[in-house]
Amino acid sequence: MTIQADKVVASIITIGDELLIGQTIDTNSAWMAQQLNAMGIWVHRRVAIGDVREAILEALDREGAVSDIVLITGGLGPTADDITKPVLCEYFGGKLVRDEATYLQVMEFFESRGLPTLQRNVDQSLVPDVATVLHNTRGTAPGMWFEKDEKIYVSMPGVPHEMKGLMSDHVLPRLQEYFQTPAIVHQTLLTSGMGESFIAERLTHFEASLPPHIKLAYLPSYGLLKLRLTAFGADKLSTAAALSIYFHQMKELLADITVTDEDLPMGEVLGKLLKEKGKTVGTAESCTGGFIAHNITLVPGSSAWYKGSVVSYANEIKSGLLGVKQETLQANGAVSEAVVREMARGALQQLKTDYIIAVSGIMGPDGGTPEKPVGTVWIAAGSAKELVTVKHQLRYDRLNNIQMTATYAMNELRKLIV
Amino acid sequence: MTIQADKVVASIITIGDELLIGQTIDTNSAWMAQQLNAMGIWVHRRVAIGDVREAILEALDREGAVSDIVLITGGLGPTADDITKPVLCEYFGGKLVRDEATYLQVMEFFESRGLPTLQRNVDQSLVPDVATVLHNTRGTAPGMWFEKDEKIYVSMPGVPHEMKGLMSDHVLPRLQEYFQTPAIVHQTLLTSGMGESFIAERLTHFEASLPPHIKLAYLPSYGLLKLRLTAFGADKLSTAAALSIYFHQMKELLADITVTDEDLPMGEVLGKLLKEKGKTVGTAESCTGGFIAHNITLVPGSSAWYKGSVVSYANEIKSGLLGVKQETLQANGAVSEAVVREMARGALQQLKTDYIIAVSGIMGPDGGTPEKPVGTVWIAAGSAKELVTVKHQLRYDRLNNIQMTATYAMNELRKLIV
Repeated sequence: MTIQADKVVASIITIGDELLIGQTIDTNSAWMAQQLNAMGIWVHRRVAIGDVREAILEALDREGAVSDIVLITGGLGPTADDITKPVLCEYFGGKLVRDEATYLQVMEFFESRGLPTLQRNVDQSLVPDVATVLHNTRGTAPGMWFEKDEKIYVSMPGVPHEMKGLMSDHVLPRLQEYFQTPAIVHQTLLTSGMGESFIAERLTHFEASLPPHIKLAYLPSYGLLKLRLTAFGADKLSTAAALSIYFHQMKELLADITVTDEDLPMGEVLGKLLKEKGKTVGTAESCTGGFIAHNITLVPGSSAWYKGSVVSYANEIKSGLLGVKQETLQANGAVSEAVVREMARGALQQLKTDYIIAVSGIMGPDGGTPEKPVGTVWIAAGSAKELVTVKHQLRYDRLNNIQMTATYAMNELRKLIV
Repeated sequence: MTIQADKVVASIITIGDELLIGQTIDTNSAWMAQQLNAMGIWVHRRVAIGDVREAILEALDREGAVSDIVLITGGLGPTADDITKPVLCEYFGGKLVRDEATYLQVMEFFESRGLPTLQRNVDQSLVPDVATVLHNTRGTAPGMWFEKDEKIYVSMPGVPHEMKGLMSDHVLPRLQEYFQTPAIVHQTLLTSGMGESFIAERLTHFEASLPPHIKLAYLPSYGLLKLRLTAFGADKLSTAAALSIYFHQMKELLADITVTDEDLPMGEVLGKLLKEKGKTVGTAESCTGGFIAHNITLVPGSSAWYKGSVVSYANEIKSGLLGVKQETLQANGAVSEAVVREMARGALQQLKTDYIIAVSGIMGPDGGTPEKPVGTVWIAAGSAKELVTVKHQLRYDRLNNIQMTATYAMNELRKLIV
């Protein structure tokens, strides 16, 4: 059945106390939303509730009233705190019956590992008879698809890997068939070096010229600023084309501060550039403790442009492995332009890469002095031929300082290469 | 005014499309919830909505009806998509007036940077006259505290650093005064090596013996499993004492698979152990690309036990910096027990630490072969005296595989040291 719709909207309900108490960060919702947007489905609400029967029933009512699609994650495990399935059974007026395919899979899962199959796991193969079972190849809890009053409700495990499998294999294709979705298109520009309000001033006319179906949003991101244009339209091709025209205008207005016109993490932006140029990079990290290397290697295929790093957290490693001179350390201190230059040169020799990024700083919360307060960081980026050095004064907590240093450092190398 | 309450509950409303489309992960809510729980305030609902007037008004109504406290983040910036303040003004029936202290701060913020002060920034010093201004020392948008029908509503910027400042400086102390809160106490046990349903079987009697005000939750976490006991009670001391008794019982039942009885990340667990023993560690990482070093250095003060790392992503770095023999690489391949042993030995010599962690594997999605499929990883952990090697076969996506490898590797060293 295909539904004609102007705008197809979805709610995401996450069930689980671990999210509410802050023990776990919700990454599932972000991933689901990106997939849904790509299909033209707008996520307009997200609700996190506990493993509480009344809260689940109320949320199903509420979200079903305002959305075409309700995606529910969590509470499908084999332990006593997992109540989602019986509550869904109650809500949709069904009774639990065994799904043979799931039952066989559960049995096989445990037998193949030489483990006994417990009743609580066998019970994971029970599903409400009013549901369509969505087969979970990555775990023992099946997904469940319900239809009521022309709305779609889908229940999935909260384990990210399992949820993604069910979404990709079953949910997204079925939603594609069920709804005739309009298009949602995003384009994001990443900028550096100008504050949000000043960029907004520069874009005043541009923003006023945007038609009602195109929106501009401002998003600070680790020392940089993202500007996102979003367009809604009937079909993807023409909507994307219309958006491109406005995006191009915005790019021209902000050409001097643009980092990239793709919504990619800095490690990926740098990687694509190095791959395009056929060059290699390494890092010599002190205060960032390997975080820059991690960002670079998050990108599949990075072995083509990234060779390795020396994390010289202690000064003896700066000397021992990177050849930083004792006199330089003593005269200037570890957090200095002189030391970060020697780290870069030493690392170029050891790693034999075309380019290097070196950082040395104080990420906090302790370790600051009056001359070098917490947040002081020196960055060196470049090659044997040309090395750029920059000093930043950061003002955040330890992890934020590390993240911002990494972003600034990778951006310095990007600017030099381009 | 102090309110007597059995249970004080809060809702968190996050305003902003960037969360709904999945461009940003919500880390604010988790942090806020931890702070609130520590004060005895239970976060029972969390709602994410867009920068949409009707959605904001509806959420304020809805959450105010079911909670004592409503915390709102987002939408207070200087750009056109930021509408939270005027909507709050409408909801609480006030009118916008200039707050002198904020106005002076905004002026000073820009003048001290040699920048002009734009009208849109001056407007950030306007606040509804019915609100109490909460002074934001970390940014230009003030926090706002509203009271209505004995409920508290607090609006804060979405920028994590600014939100945290306002919460710590103003919101939490004021909530402490306003509500006489009961206690919420959590204790978490981290386990490794036994599946969730088997642990649940072992705990069947124990779980049945829990009183109504103490709950047990199961939480998979990067290849390990967390078991969290949560107790609600009148005062913190006696509630914590009662919980301890049950937690101790659970620990005894799971002694053989316990990793730690503190809810800390593995990097911190390992760091505390090394600090206690006065020992140092380094890492030799291939596939994890610096992620283990990053986990270790996230902990403030880690320079006391962590010296440095070699990220030997390319084989020439394994040989060149870690002395891994060409013959070993050729005979066994980079992902092998022999190579990871040589990486460990070479790194011990270079870094001169007491302990070492070395990893080599294939994180995916590409790079697998029939003999060594994606997810194959070898770990070596130990000292010059004793080196343990372990092989894992992981089955997730690139980042998850990296995270799980790091957790397993740090846990191997932890087990060896203990």
